Amino acid sequence: MVEQLNQAEREDALDGLPDWDHDEGRDAITRNFTFADFSEAFAFMTRVALLAEKADHHPEWSNVYNRVEILLTTHDAGGLSGRDIDMAQAIDALVE
Amino acid sequence: MVEQLNQAEREDALDGLPDWDHDEGRDAITRNFTFADFSEAFAFMTRVALLAEKADHHPEWSNVYNRVEILLTTHDAGGLSGRDIDMAQAIDALVE
Repeated sequence: MVEQLNQAEREDALDGLPDWDHDEGRDAITRNFTFADFSEAFAFMTRVALLAEKADHHPEWSNVYNRVEILLTTHDAGGLSGRDIDMAQAIDALVE
Repeated sequence: MVEQLNQAEREDALDGLPDWDHDEGRDAITRNFTFADFSEAFAFMTRVALLAEKADHHPEWSNVYNRVEILLTTHDAGGLSGRDIDMAQAIDALVE
């Protein structure tokens, strides 16, 4: 069982992820990405898919042409866990 | 400029796509797909991405683990066009 972050851990984690927003209703984090075109957007999605499969932790995400929106939460934990923070950092590293 | 389908064309097209729903508010068609797991879902998405890029006609779509939801409409036409019907048929062919 993965444990939800407690309040102090959550605040620390969000401070370290300035490009992500906290969706309080879902206890999730979200980030929107914009690329030059669909080809670049889907190339990014493919890299995220490989990260997700390797970590066995998968995003909720959508794509419209050059835009990708990613939401991370941990269903098993009923909210944000360390696995979401790790995935967000790995995704950020792809676009830095 | 791509032309919107007229009412008769729209009805004929939807009759030929029984697995797709008509979203009247958006004048779009939608279909939900369920796969065994994320790997299968993303493999399908990759094939759809290749179709979309080749046709230069891209879906609005989302994925959560083994589920993929696709919405097709033609922004340039302000609603459904023949390009959406062609894309829906090509997507259906992938999963038949």
